[in-house]
Formats: sequence, structure tokens, C-alpha cells
Amino acid sequence: MCQLLGMNCNVPTDICFSFTGFQARGGATDVHSDGWGIAFFEGKGTRIFLDPQPSCSSPVAELVRAYPIRSKNVIAHIRKATQGAIGLENTHPFMRELWGRYWIFAHNGNLLNFAPELDGSFVPVGLTDSERAFCWLLQQLRQRFGSNSPARSELFAALHALTLEIASYGEFNFLLSNGDCLFAHASTQLTYIVRQAPFTQAHLNDQDVTVDFSSLTSPDDRVAVIATQPLTDNEAWLSMARGTLWWFEEGEVVQSLATRPGPERKAG
Amino acid sequence: MCQLLGMNCNVPTDICFSFTGFQARGGATDVHSDGWGIAFFEGKGTRIFLDPQPSCSSPVAELVRAYPIRSKNVIAHIRKATQGAIGLENTHPFMRELWGRYWIFAHNGNLLNFAPELDGSFVPVGLTDSERAFCWLLQQLRQRFGSNSPARSELFAALHALTLEIASYGEFNFLLSNGDCLFAHASTQLTYIVRQAPFTQAHLNDQDVTVDFSSLTSPDDRVAVIATQPLTDNEAWLSMARGTLWWFEEGEVVQSLATRPGPERKAG
Repeated sequence: MCQLLGMNCNVPTDICFSFTGFQARGGATDVHSDGWGIAFFEGKGTRIFLDPQPSCSSPVAELVRAYPIRSKNVIAHIRKATQGAIGLENTHPFMRELWGRYWIFAHNGNLLNFAPELDGSFVPVGLTDSERAFCWLLQQLRQRFGSNSPARSELFAALHALTLEIASYGEFNFLLSNGDCLFAHASTQLTYIVRQAPFTQAHLNDQDVTVDFSSLTSPDDRVAVIATQPLTDNEAWLSMARGTLWWFEEGEVVQSLATRPGPERKAG
Repeated sequence: MCQLLGMNCNVPTDICFSFTGFQARGGATDVHSDGWGIAFFEGKGTRIFLDPQPSCSSPVAELVRAYPIRSKNVIAHIRKATQGAIGLENTHPFMRELWGRYWIFAHNGNLLNFAPELDGSFVPVGLTDSERAFCWLLQQLRQRFGSNSPARSELFAALHALTLEIASYGEFNFLLSNGDCLFAHASTQLTYIVRQAPFTQAHLNDQDVTVDFSSLTSPDDRVAVIATQPLTDNEAWLSMARGTLWWFEEGEVVQSLATRPGPERKAG
């Protein structure tokens, strides 16, 4: 299984602290060493750093850890290959453009026999189930809404319906962002935390590093961090119920919807 | 005017030497300090490093200069903003996917009143004439060939016709690659060199750095480097005639076609 990391904020924030712990999971404190990647939105623009090497020993990861890029939406991924060989074209996150905005996607899980019909508008370059799901998802969104971006609530409802379809093929934890919102699907495992005033100290799980957010933030800052497993050992991470789709915006949860039947999976 | 750099090889080659000279043009030996970017193909995958900061002082450029990424096709760009503010979304090279392959594009020049009709299949994210031209170009290729990639000679003929149309709007030097071929259009200024056995020493124009290619290469290696201005001062760079479109593959010129009438502009 891979590792996902997402960040959604109300002011551009650097992810250096969280990435320091996350980076260690790619071959040092965990076994996910089949490449890694991270995408930053800066306004409508994006920067993606990809490396088919383990993140714990990647010079590109070292740059990302040390170079503070301020962003309102970040998606990172460490890969444990299931479908598709180790290679740059199979390294997450993936990017496409829809409605004049870049969309970034990373997946953790495994979809079995997911071979939807693609009309040529978004075609996978690599061989992963993940990129195939992403391409189909964007294709369906464009088919539904045409050339114009819908209202966000309509977009979230459509994404919910499409997630239900894809999730029937298997494990489908994902993070998706267009630079405004960050959408997260907890298929089997995903946690999050919203950091806001009063800010305190946080200590990483994966490395002995502490940060004092109170000295780095303003009182109005709000930062949601989403990860496969909690990144810190002294904060209250919230487990996202299996089968829930979440809409984060400006550092907080706007809405969540269940993607499986049954009362125990109903989203809060 | 911006600076373009391209490399097309028959074996994956690192661009560290050429990039060392090129990087200095972004704010040190030249005035193009409104951001820079470089894209590497590695098989079908791509890595793009973008920075809205001047390349001569960019930590990302420092990583690219020091970290040998081996690639058969590279496109780099240093920006002097003409249309579109300084910002990540306006920083070249641009990337889109067509026919299950990534396409990378960088432009040097200025297109006046170029406002083609876009059908929504490729929409610019930023505000440059360059990204608009790239989107329209891919849209026209998809309209012409549908969902299937044509033979390369057909592709080159179509690209030639489209370049003629766009070039009527102004200065349109560009580099374009899908990872197999590198296409270069010399609208006003572009030079190239093919390095092959017997390899010799080369000395940069922009910094006092010398490399001995004979110690770094195999006898069968062939590397074409394309740049706005020659990068070295002791090699015979070939000036590409104004109004010529070039197809590079496996480190050599496959074909070139004139994009302006008149005998003095006929391609060799």
C-alpha cells in the first residue's frame, strides 16, 4: 500500500515539516520505496516533483524538504507498486488540465479489472490503475458539464457518484485537487487534522523533529493535513470512516458524503 | 526575448553542462529573469522543474545543474515576460497529454492578436500567447487525426501547416517534443549543433567551464543541442534559417521545411 499526504489551507503555507516525516516513509521508516512525488499549487500554476527513486534517499526530496514552497493545496504520494512497473510514467501524482485548470491526483489502493471505455479526451501515459481511474473521472466530468466548470457543490455531487462507481472495483483511497478545493476519499485508510489557533507544538512520528506552530503562524491561519497515517504523535488526528468522500476548502471540511451503504459508514 | 534550450539524443544523456551555461542567462549574463523551467522525458514519463524566480539564483536550478537526469529529449526556457504576468502558471515549458503521450512546449517570441477558437479540449491555464498557441496546436492535431497518433511524417506535415498559420501572427520560435521527436521552429533566431564521434572539448560562452566529451561518451552517441544562441565558444553551431521548421530524432535532423516563402529562407 502506498502513502498519501495532502494539505489544504486558507493561506499559502509550506509543507516542509509534514514532508520531513512523510519522506522518511519512502524506504526508511516504511517500505514504500518505488518512487514518490509531490505537487504544489501556487495560484493556478503547479509544480510537480517526481522521482522513481525512494524518497528517503532522493536529492529531489531533499530539495523539497529544505526549500519552503508556499501553497494552499499540496498532494504527495509514496509508491509501493501494485500495477505498472517502477518508472517515471507510473509515479504519482498525475496531472491533467480540465476547464483551464490543472487537476492533480494521487491514489492508494488497487482496482481490479477496472477497464472503462475511454473516448480519447484523457488517455493514460503509464500503466497504473490509478492514472486510468483519474483519466476516466475527468472524462466523465467533462461529459457531464461540457466546457464550463460547474458550481463546487455540483462538482462534489458528481465526484461522489463517480467515486461510488470506481470504488466498486477495489481499494480507492485518493486525493484530488484543482487548486481551489482538495477532495479526499477514504476507502480503507485516511486520517486528517485541522490546525488552527491556538497553535501548539507538534512532534513527528517518523523522525525526532518538533515544530512550534505558534511561532510560525498568524491567528487566522487554518491548515488541514490529510495522511494515510498520522504524521505526529502528540496531536489528535481524526480517522476518516471507511467509505467517505471529503471536500476540503480554505483549511476546513465543507462537506463529506458516504460512499458505502450502512449506518456505521455514514460520514459525519 | 526569452531563451530556449533543447536537447535530442540517441541515448539518454544528462544536460548538466549545457544547463550550466544556460542557467547563467537568467539574470546573470543576460536579462531574462522572469522565471525559467526545464522538462525532461524519461521514457514516456516527464519531469518538469519550474521556478518563477531568476534561474541564476534559483535553488531548483541549482538542483538541476548538479543532479544528472539522463534523458533523450529535454526542453528548457528562460522567460522575459511579454504577455502574462510573472507567475508559475505563465512559466514555460507547458505540458499537456495527447494520444497517451505527454507533449512539452516552450516558446520564444510574441504573437499579436492571436485569439483562435478553442473547443475546450485544451484550455490555457495562464495568460500567455504561448500556452494559447500550444493548446490550439494540440486541438488542431486531435481534430485532424482523431484518437490515434499518426505516422511521424504525417505529424510533421501537419505541424508544418499549423506553424505557418500561427507564425503569421508574429515571432514564433518554439521547441516541442512528445518524447520521441523534438520539433524546433526558427522564426527569428535559433541555432543547433550535433555532437558525435570524434568527441572533443567544449567551453561555455556564459561561464568559464570546459567539458571533455570524449571521456564521457561512447562512440555511437549522438546529441543534438538547440539553443537561441550558441552555448559554447569553440564549436561550430549552425544557424537555423529564419522561417524553418526542424524535426530532430535520435540526435540528428530527419527533415526541415521552410515556413516562409522566398529562396533565402528555404530550409537546407
